Amino acid sequence: MAEEVKVFGAWGSPYSRRVELALQLKGVQYEYIEEDIPKNKSPLLLKYNPVHKKIPVLLHNGKPIAESLVILEYIEETWKGNPILPEDPYDKAMARFWAKFVDEKCMPALWKAGWSPESEREKPVEEACECLKTLESALGGKRFFGGDTVGMVDIAAIFIGYWLRLIQEATGMELLSAEKFPELFKWTDEFVSCSVVKGSLPPRDKLLAFIKARIAAAMDQAQTNASK
Amino acid sequence: MAEEVKVFGAWGSPYSRRVELALQLKGVQYEYIEEDIPKNKSPLLLKYNPVHKKIPVLLHNGKPIAESLVILEYIEETWKGNPILPEDPYDKAMARFWAKFVDEKCMPALWKAGWSPESEREKPVEEACECLKTLESALGGKRFFGGDTVGMVDIAAIFIGYWLRLIQEATGMELLSAEKFPELFKWTDEFVSCSVVKGSLPPRDKLLAFIKARIAAAMDQAQTNASK
Repeated sequence: MAEEVKVFGAWGSPYSRRVELALQLKGVQYEYIEEDIPKNKSPLLLKYNPVHKKIPVLLHNGKPIAESLVILEYIEETWKGNPILPEDPYDKAMARFWAKFVDEKCMPALWKAGWSPESEREKPVEEACECLKTLESALGGKRFFGGDTVGMVDIAAIFIGYWLRLIQEATGMELLSAEKFPELFKWTDEFVSCSVVKGSLPPRDKLLAFIKARIAAAMDQAQTNASK
Repeated sequence: MAEEVKVFGAWGSPYSRRVELALQLKGVQYEYIEEDIPKNKSPLLLKYNPVHKKIPVLLHNGKPIAESLVILEYIEETWKGNPILPEDPYDKAMARFWAKFVDEKCMPALWKAGWSPESEREKPVEEACECLKTLESALGGKRFFGGDTVGMVDIAAIFIGYWLRLIQEATGMELLSAEKFPELFKWTDEFVSCSVVKGSLPPRDKLLAFIKARIAAAMDQAQTNASK
């Protein structure tokens, strides 16, 4: 019997793209189901992720898994080829540490910096730069966080590798530049040039338009709140 | 050469107790180093966890690992006896999902509910109860989250297993009771009765006094803030 592998995602979400990238790196065929978030979540999504009600969900032979980092670990254990985690327990712990850092520190800081109105940007931008600086230290001269190949930390950092520079283009804000963080900047070039990564990213123009629309909506919201 | 295993922790912290419990379950000998947090962190702690500057840190043969859930995974991979994660990738993913849920949803909600002044408790208490209800569903009639033995989710939930009922005793607040969450309540009894768990918990009276002092300090702080 053929394996059933389905991904419930949203095309503009870095979280579901993480899952797709990992599956593509492993050469796993899957069916992709686009969810209309946040307003029209499908009954299947709510059934498969009743706790968080969020994408992504990986469905493997009828069994659902939620939370992108948990899904990445599952993919690594289920399809062994092209490993995304090192063999050595200590190196593996380091990869997990940095993936968690990306999720819990970098993502919220970058999110805040990206969607804040210009007048409130100073502190979030400072925090985001601090995160990027720390993350750059984890690269330590390597081509990828995973060494010579894309690994779990690279996949977790997909937002920094692709979304961030488009957000900068849309806002004129500069968090990540070749001057400020040369190694991390170089990594984003390496990352998006990688053929499998390239094939798993949303189209540039479509994503840029999406980001611009989101920023405009966030600014409108901020103005509405300010005039209340 | 003998292995060097050190834990940098704080006696009243459920996070460093997680690490100690896992090592004790595995029968690993370790040296415990008490850190004076948050004010007098040792130079060694800052050296070993420069990113978060927090306990716990596990030092294994000179190599430091931070973040309690990352440490638990490392312990599981390094010392194979008495596994705390299931073998099967899907079951393992479920354990990781619930450990993450405890960390990211339950802990912040319980923390807020526990330390809020009575007048501001309603919403945090509601959130915390929602989390406990969801967590109870994960037990699904088993003795432990790990099945017949204590596993990673049980260890992650150590705060709910031991601290929470003492916080309730100190505050008179009732989040977790036999009436509201019978299975989860029973689990706390099973958990603290387990001999290895019992041996790894802080002394009851000392912890209760510590919790009372923290609550009093939090209330003072809230009053100071309110009168500003």
